[in-house]
Order: sequence, then structure tokens, then C-alpha cells
Amino acid sequence: MEQGGKTALGWAARDATGVLSPYSFTTRVQGDDDVTIKVLYCGICHTDLHFIKNDWGISMYPVVPGHEIVGIVTDVGPGVSKFKAGDTVGVGYYVDTCRDCEWCGAGHENYCAGLVPTCNGVDHRHGGAVTRGGFSDAVVVNEGYVVRVPDGLPLDRAAPLLCAGVTVYSPMIRHGLDRPGKHLGVVGLGGLGHVAVKFGKAFGMKVTVVSSSPGKRQEALDRLGADEFLISGDAELMKAAAGTMDGIIDTVSAWHPVAPLLQLLKPMGQLVVVGGPSKPLELPVVAIVPGGKGVNGSLVGSVADCQAMLDFAGKHGIGAEVEVVKMDYVNTALERLEKNDVRYRFVIDVAGSNDLGSAA
Amino acid sequence: MEQGGKTALGWAARDATGVLSPYSFTTRVQGDDDVTIKVLYCGICHTDLHFIKNDWGISMYPVVPGHEIVGIVTDVGPGVSKFKAGDTVGVGYYVDTCRDCEWCGAGHENYCAGLVPTCNGVDHRHGGAVTRGGFSDAVVVNEGYVVRVPDGLPLDRAAPLLCAGVTVYSPMIRHGLDRPGKHLGVVGLGGLGHVAVKFGKAFGMKVTVVSSSPGKRQEALDRLGADEFLISGDAELMKAAAGTMDGIIDTVSAWHPVAPLLQLLKPMGQLVVVGGPSKPLELPVVAIVPGGKGVNGSLVGSVADCQAMLDFAGKHGIGAEVEVVKMDYVNTALERLEKNDVRYRFVIDVAGSNDLGSAA
Repeated sequence: MEQGGKTALGWAARDATGVLSPYSFTTRVQGDDDVTIKVLYCGICHTDLHFIKNDWGISMYPVVPGHEIVGIVTDVGPGVSKFKAGDTVGVGYYVDTCRDCEWCGAGHENYCAGLVPTCNGVDHRHGGAVTRGGFSDAVVVNEGYVVRVPDGLPLDRAAPLLCAGVTVYSPMIRHGLDRPGKHLGVVGLGGLGHVAVKFGKAFGMKVTVVSSSPGKRQEALDRLGADEFLISGDAELMKAAAGTMDGIIDTVSAWHPVAPLLQLLKPMGQLVVVGGPSKPLELPVVAIVPGGKGVNGSLVGSVADCQAMLDFAGKHGIGAEVEVVKMDYVNTALERLEKNDVRYRFVIDVAGSNDLGSAA
Repeated sequence: MEQGGKTALGWAARDATGVLSPYSFTTRVQGDDDVTIKVLYCGICHTDLHFIKNDWGISMYPVVPGHEIVGIVTDVGPGVSKFKAGDTVGVGYYVDTCRDCEWCGAGHENYCAGLVPTCNGVDHRHGGAVTRGGFSDAVVVNEGYVVRVPDGLPLDRAAPLLCAGVTVYSPMIRHGLDRPGKHLGVVGLGGLGHVAVKFGKAFGMKVTVVSSSPGKRQEALDRLGADEFLISGDAELMKAAAGTMDGIIDTVSAWHPVAPLLQLLKPMGQLVVVGGPSKPLELPVVAIVPGGKGVNGSLVGSVADCQAMLDFAGKHGIGAEVEVVKMDYVNTALERLEKNDVRYRFVIDVAGSNDLGSAA
């Protein structure tokens, strides 16, 4: 047993096959500023796939995935002021940062070099223990990295907002893509893209989905409320739409040409990359210099961004489109996710699952 | 004779050999809002090379190059309010825009689709005449595209500021790289880069020159006042400098890897590309997503930027480092420029040159 806290019951991958099975472990002891959370729902993010299969060569097994956590506070340390037992809360991609650097000070702690991911992170403040994520029934998190889930938001549909939601919301705010009358492009209609469409519409913007799949047109327009649908392979349509967008959120993880996307932007527009193709993008200088355009990366968002995003989602009734599954379906869900066979996010009903936990 | 104005005497390229020779033409008639300028000095920009050799396939011969113009107002139309005869003024990369679009309205007219370059532009407002640049003794320009040269700035050293200067100054302002305590990287130490170093120091920033040429160290530190000099090929030094810069102005026109430059940036930092490699840049997503970094293009600057830049230069005594030549040296100067054999900008002493003009 590690760390001396309470027993948590979850599922873990034991090696790079990435197959998950029941796993018991001990959480860290709840500290003065910590919140103990009973996990209700946890979304499955593409990053979880990378962690369980050791795609980045940094996985420390057993890996308990999950960083789109919604749950109920069951206990708080004596120094906790923001939360009390019974509160409905969320935890996203990270559970700690250095709290001391320029980025932590400026409210951009998602760019802190000392960021501790919720899953597979090394928790230096707690003896270097490896963090375990939300594919388990309990997590202990410093209150500074916990957000409040507003009343009225369905909890299963809220879970993916904790990572997918803030990942698109944060750069929309940073780059001014949150104002009525502006025109937002959303490239790719998966877990991230479909939420970007919803935020864009709630901000009062015109939203155009750019996709390589003509079959997604009806979904985009009818189910998600996009204004227009543009097939990225249709050179004529793409040319007709040139220079019309104020900004683009590009959620596609497979390699794709970005020059045609940059052409869609108005002058000074930004293409925000939140997907992660492994092959370098090709960036023709002529695609950015004459129009003063840019390509910006973005990684999740600050805790404050995450809280603002949840509050905004609550106010506008925005939840992810989800397929809720029990934990014993998780391996199948991961396989389907790898084939993009999900509309639009798997969420594990952790509290409603049996067969959690087993000896390490 | 074209356009019915006054006779102007200059030098022009007649074909894609790019060889310039004396050339006479007629300016357009000075309109109500126009200023007639006697050209004193004109800088030679790399773009001039592209125009005279038809590198972009858009040259309309005869081509009279030159868009880094400093001169004296000799006459003004009755509607001109900003200038009077005798004023010392400058003209930069463009002499008109549509004056009606979102970008013209927002003070970003350098991104107007109707921008009319000072040289080799099609002047739709004046019958589609091809614009002739500052390698001639007179230009006629709408007062809205003319800037005032502040007293005390040496006019030969001011000329290159009209394009090279504003090209680096404008993105420095846009991206907040104009504040004491910030750390600016300047990549490449040519006509643009050397002015960026001067502006950076005048803004009170720490300035590091990044160059592939170790031989430029002393120039950078002693002559231009940079704080540090980093050899881009020295992987160890580059690694030691990782994450230290708030922004980088990249002035290099030859293809070069940008990932090592992005590594020098702090989180959320911007790499601003103002050079023009013809081969697409390689942009690894991992170089921008984790740090929320970006690659932005930028093209010259607005007229207001240009005026602010000149005023700032006047206040801080900033001029380009120039080699002043007479017009009959221009072909040699262009050959030397092509080989980067100039420190740091050629400027033609137009008013002091003989042999201007000849029958078209």
C-alpha cells in the first residue's frame, strides 16, 4: 500500500498493452488544503490512450487514467475554504503546479513547468508519488485545483468539459473568439470540436465546421447548431470562404495541411492548434506574413478559465454529447475511441460501476 | 508621356535582367489631397530585388523601385491639411489602400486587400497606372500615406526606417515586445534585424541576437548594443537559453528550422516571422501546444505605426546603419545586397546623384 490514505478502487493499465483491469490503491493522506472527492463520472480523453499504451515513453505502470472528473466532495481538510462535503466539483487535466513561477502568478498555471498531470504525474509535493486519475472511485486534490460544477448541468455531460471543454474555451477567450458577430471556424468534429461549436454559438458567433467528412454535415448543422459546413477537400468551396473567419480552432490530431485553413482567416486571424499531429505541420510563410496571421498552440486552460467555462456552460445549458458506459466496458470504449467511433465522448459512470478495485 | 503630371527623373529596370538605367516618366497630376515630394534619400530593400528581377511574376516594366523614401514637400493640393511645402516627410511600402474596409477602419490598413505598393502597384484610384518608387526625384502621394520625419534624425539613416523599421516595430508593439524588463530575441542581423535590436534596447528590453554567423558577435554587442549573442548552431547554448525569451523577431529570409527558436520562448511567447523563406517552415505541434506558443506573420505596419515608429526613433536617436551611394552605383549595390554584402542598408542619395532620367 502506498501513501497511507484511504483505499481507492479503480481500473488500471499494467503495461503497454494498455488493457485495463480492476486495481486497488491507497490515495494520499488528505492534507490541510485538500479535498477528497467521490468520483461520479469520468470522461475518456484521447490522452488517456497515449498514457495507457506508453506512446510517449513516460508511462509509469500501473496507470489509472482519467482527468475529466466530476464528483462529490466527501471530506475536506481544515484549511479548505472553497468547498465543503456535499459540493459537486470537477477536476481536470492537472492537480498541482509550482504555485511560484511567473505563469502561476499570472493565472496561466497551465503553462507552469511544474504542472502535475492528474494521471501519471509525479507529485513532488507528496513524495514523488505517481498520480492516479478518475478511473477510480476517489481522488484527493488540493482545493486550488478543484472547480465547482454549477447547478443544473447534467453531471455526465459536464465531465468532458473539464478537459475537452476548457481546451477549446481557453484559447477562444485568449484570442478574442468570444464575441457576437465574429466568425469562428472549427476544424474536426470530435470530442473537442463539437464543444467548440456549442461555445461559439453560445457566444453569439457565426460558426462554420470544417471537416474532411461530408457525412458530418447534418450532425454539425442540425444536432450541434453550426451555421455552415465546409468540406476541407473541396477546393472551390474553400476558396469561396477565403478571408471570412476571425479565428479557427483546429482540433484534428491527424496530420493535415494548414495553409488552406490559414487562407480562411481574415487578416490578423489566428489558427489555434489544440490537436497533436506527430509529424510537423507545413507552414508556408506566405500564408501568414501578408495577412499578419498566426498559428498558436494551446494546452488545456487555467483553473480560473475552467471555472469560468463551467459557469458559462451552466448558464447556457452546454454539455458534451456523451455515450455513458460502465467501467467494465472501458477497454471496448478505448478501442472504439482509437477508431474515432464515438459521438462525441465516452464517459464512465464510475459510481454506477461494479467490479472496481483489485489487489495491486 | 503618362498621366499628365510633372516630369520625374529616375532609374528603372526594363526587363527581368534587373539592370537599372536612367529613365524619365511623368508623375500623376497632383490631386486635392496629394503631396508632391522631392526625393532626397531612398533605401534599397530586399523586395526591390524581387521586383526588378520579376521573381514573383508580377513585375510591370519599366520598374522604378524604392519604398524607403525620405524627401521634402515641394507642393500640396488645396485639400491637404497635414503637410506644407518645405516639410520633411517619408513614404513607405504603400501609397494607398481601399480606405473603406474593416482593416482600413481599424487602423490596420497594411492588411487591406486593396493595398497599392509604392513600386509596381496598380493605382486603381488613378486609372490603373503602375506606381513608380523612390529611385526617382519626385513622387506624388495622398497625404494619408505620408509621414512626418522628426527633426534631428539624419535623413539618410531615417530612410530605411520607412520599411525595415516599421516592419519590426509594428509587431513589437502588437505582441507587447515594447516593455522594459522583457527579453527580446532577434534572429538575423541584416537590414531588419539590426533595427530591431536598436528598438528593443530603446524600449528598455534585454536583447539577444540569434545568428548562424559567429563573426557577427562583436557587431551585435559593441556596435548595436545587444546584451547577448547566441549562435543558433550551438545546441548546448541554445538549450541553456531555452524558455528565456518573451518574444522573437525572425528576420531571416533563407529557410531555417524554427523549432529551436520556439524553444527559446517562454510560455505564450510569439515568434514573429517578417522574413520570407520560400520553402514552408516546419512547425512541430509539440513546439507550440505545451507552451501555448505561436508563430505569427507580420507585414510592414500601418501609417500610424510608421509615424509612431519615426517619432520614437527621433526621440531616441535611432537611425539605420547605412552605406550611402549615388544612383550610378545602384546596380552594384543591388548585386552586393543579393550577397548580403552590406552593413546594414544601402541608401541612395537621390538628390545628390547625376545622370537621373532618360527617354522611356
